[in-house]
Amino acid sequence: MADPRFHDRKGPFSLGELAERTGAELAEGAEPARSLVDVAPLETAGADDLSFLDNKRYVEAFAASKAGGCVVHPDFVARAPEGMALLVTKEPYRAYALAAQAYYPPMIPPSGISPDASVDEDARIGGGCCIEAGAVVQANAEIGAGCWIGSNAVIARGVVLGAQSIVGANASIYNSLIGERCRIYPGARLGQDGFGFAPDPTEHLKIPQLGRVIVGDDVEIGANATIDRGAGPDTIIGDRCMIDNLVQIAHNVELGPGCVIAALAGIAGSTKFQNYVFIGGQVGVAGHLRIGAGVRVAAQSGVIRNVEPGVTVGGSPALPIREWHRQTVAISRLTKTGDKK
Amino acid sequence: MADPRFHDRKGPFSLGELAERTGAELAEGAEPARSLVDVAPLETAGADDLSFLDNKRYVEAFAASKAGGCVVHPDFVARAPEGMALLVTKEPYRAYALAAQAYYPPMIPPSGISPDASVDEDARIGGGCCIEAGAVVQANAEIGAGCWIGSNAVIARGVVLGAQSIVGANASIYNSLIGERCRIYPGARLGQDGFGFAPDPTEHLKIPQLGRVIVGDDVEIGANATIDRGAGPDTIIGDRCMIDNLVQIAHNVELGPGCVIAALAGIAGSTKFQNYVFIGGQVGVAGHLRIGAGVRVAAQSGVIRNVEPGVTVGGSPALPIREWHRQTVAISRLTKTGDKK
Amino acid sequence: MADPRFHDRKGPFSLGELAERTGAELAEGAEPARSLVDVAPLETAGADDLSFLDNKRYVEAFAASKAGGCVVHPDFVARAPEGMALLVTKEPYRAYALAAQAYYPPMIPPSGISPDASVDEDARIGGGCCIEAGAVVQANAEIGAGCWIGSNAVIARGVVLGAQSIVGANASIYNSLIGERCRIYPGARLGQDGFGFAPDPTEHLKIPQLGRVIVGDDVEIGANATIDRGAGPDTIIGDRCMIDNLVQIAHNVELGPGCVIAALAGIAGSTKFQNYVFIGGQVGVAGHLRIGAGVRVAAQSGVIRNVEPGVTVGGSPALPIREWHRQTVAISRLTKTGDKK
Repeated sequence: MADPRFHDRKGPFSLGELAERTGAELAEGAEPARSLVDVAPLETAGADDLSFLDNKRYVEAFAASKAGGCVVHPDFVARAPEGMALLVTKEPYRAYALAAQAYYPPMIPPSGISPDASVDEDARIGGGCCIEAGAVVQANAEIGAGCWIGSNAVIARGVVLGAQSIVGANASIYNSLIGERCRIYPGARLGQDGFGFAPDPTEHLKIPQLGRVIVGDDVEIGANATIDRGAGPDTIIGDRCMIDNLVQIAHNVELGPGCVIAALAGIAGSTKFQNYVFIGGQVGVAGHLRIGAGVRVAAQSGVIRNVEPGVTVGGSPALPIREWHRQTVAISRLTKTGDKK
Repeated sequence: MADPRFHDRKGPFSLGELAERTGAELAEGAEPARSLVDVAPLETAGADDLSFLDNKRYVEAFAASKAGGCVVHPDFVARAPEGMALLVTKEPYRAYALAAQAYYPPMIPPSGISPDASVDEDARIGGGCCIEAGAVVQANAEIGAGCWIGSNAVIARGVVLGAQSIVGANASIYNSLIGERCRIYPGARLGQDGFGFAPDPTEHLKIPQLGRVIVGDDVEIGANATIDRGAGPDTIIGDRCMIDNLVQIAHNVELGPGCVIAALAGIAGSTKFQNYVFIGGQVGVAGHLRIGAGVRVAAQSGVIRNVEPGVTVGGSPALPIREWHRQTVAISRLTKTGDKK
Repeated sequence: MADPRFHDRKGPFSLGELAERTGAELAEGAEPARSLVDVAPLETAGADDLSFLDNKRYVEAFAASKAGGCVVHPDFVARAPEGMALLVTKEPYRAYALAAQAYYPPMIPPSGISPDASVDEDARIGGGCCIEAGAVVQANAEIGAGCWIGSNAVIARGVVLGAQSIVGANASIYNSLIGERCRIYPGARLGQDGFGFAPDPTEHLKIPQLGRVIVGDDVEIGANATIDRGAGPDTIIGDRCMIDNLVQIAHNVELGPGCVIAALAGIAGSTKFQNYVFIGGQVGVAGHLRIGAGVRVAAQSGVIRNVEPGVTVGGSPALPIREWHRQTVAISRLTKTGDKK
């Protein structure tokens, strides 16, 4: 089970209840009234635990698992060990998410403002907020109801934070308007100056950065990620975007709803994404580009041209993914020819 | 206009005054006494706003703009919409910077030490400083006049910070001597131990890191960037360097004046740059190299050899840029030949 | 000498004592009773200083050095300037580490809890700890004896920190069990949620992240590095691992003992390293891989397949290093042929 120092568990839940919550179907032989008390990985799960199989790499672990129940795709049902109760669905990861959320709903500390927090008298704090020791909320900031501001986080003057949002320890937010139910992880940096200047050998001349960071609802911004405010227009992060740790988003970037950006990727200034773009780890996207809806970019790629909706690209400079794979093969042939000489 | 929650605007300024401040020439038909009240992007500017055109990608937006005035290169004057007052200059971005600085000079909060800051009695604080809530200034630190230390920033023992420098929220500075008018952004880390050790399978043996970080005047260090102190020599950042977010500068690195390093780049230990080197995003530069004045490195490149002054390089491993481009073309031909087979 | 604002020096030490501490042999002519007062780089060392030569790039500096003593490999003894006392060893960097540690043992501030720290009454704090101003220790955290918690660091509820560990300024630790003698550098982020969700165009569904971060003894975690907690299993960092600045370690990753990971590298979820793996700067390692003992990965490489123990790889996608070098040569020949046409 999850370490009780860090997590509170709910439940138990019956298989019938889990099927209802997850939309999965109970396979033959799974008794709806049977109760499971926890979730666990395939390798460590026991008879009272629910597990899941989402990646075919782990089919052997599934076949050998002692889990009492398991969420699984129809394709793998036949590999289940005897006696395991199966919750069958075409979206096992999604169904597992719903089950695990039932056992472990988000932990929010009790509301209250720590006497060791520093909240400006001109800040507005909604009801039911938890503001931890060392957090600083500056003048004219507006914190919606039910927010959790972690220790030593800084909400600078004028910032607006929507209801039920979480700001992790040591994060800082300047010049930003943030939506509801956002999760800003520890050390994330929002709203500082963009990297805008007129370069010159004797004096780089700074361009005042006059825009904001506008973050939609249900957005996740990873630990130590950085999002600069706009230079004149705003930097915009659409609803439901998922931004991983150590990502850099430059000034004037716009991300449509539901984009996913993996760790250590960087998006240069003024580039605009439509919705549901997936960016792999350590990818770089050059400035002033348009990236279409549903585009996917392989890890470590460098995107230097616009990409049409729905296209998957890879490589540096990035190409349509099949072309990139062909190049990789062609390059490997170069040396094989060389060996024969 | 810029959101008044975050920015205070000065002005209005007449076209004549703007021409004088920026060094641009008023084009025919621009009335020197006409007054402009704000700056704005081409797309959103109105009759009372000054805008600018610096990138030919945006010529159409320029031609369609409703901006009352615009800073523009002589080459694009003919594309201006009727009635737009033009400030003509061969350096439009630089001229716009000066104009925007007039409308929006840097905002510095009123001086004073917050009762919620922690300033050691043996620290020396110059006149007119603003030290915000949660900031910590340790023993024997010296803060010059007019500095702004943001909330929850940490200035560790013995650190020297020159006059009018700004340290953003949650930044930390150890073992460093910093010049005047520097801007250290939120979460930047200066002066921690370099990554120096004698590797060994049974015990990596740490090398005491005995140098400092020496930062010149007018330097900008981005959010969550990291600059380790020297191992024996110092790590040196020259005057006017511009370092973007999430950049890593290892121990003993020396940057000459005016270098520009884009986000997520890393410079390995003991490498020395002459002045005005430009490093693209996600570039890696290996250790113990010499990089000449005016060198430019394309984004995502990996530099593993010394580079002579004035040379532009790209690729990983990095080559002179034209050679790299030829390689990219040659590789793309490999698969085109393959297709014909 | 090291700046006395930042370092306290011990000594002097005689050559005989230094030989004993380092395991090096005194070369002919080196007088065991001769005393050296400090360590210094070859270029700046004087007659009372000990220096070292570890990299053949610096043989000229060695030959011209005025250092009174020098730790050196037998191969370079003949290049020593006259009168320099030599400490000869096949592991000069290691021997220098031991000598420098004698002159400059780690500085730990005096113990005590700052009145400006915030320590929950339900936290347990071992003897002899230094907890600086602004540090926050939450409920049920356990801090071992002799720890140093830097200013504005956050030790969240339930976290365990072993004896004599150091947590730098503004670092944050959640959901983690940390060993003894660890060094967590400023701004490092441990134990926040992993990047786990079931992607969906209308709603990414978050997977509760129920594991912890388990860190062994003598581990170093660099400034602004990020280590996410496990999704169900734990994220595990073995004893003696050295992790540089701005490294990303995703959920469920396991690193065996003694691994070294250079700056800006990222390790994706559920990948497992055996012991003593070396990862270069800006490397990406894909998820769900097994990387064998002693593997080395060249900087900027992208590892997308399992790697057998002892193999060195490079390139993106990564190949055995000799094959990668052959490809680099073959590609460069493509354009040389092109030039001749």
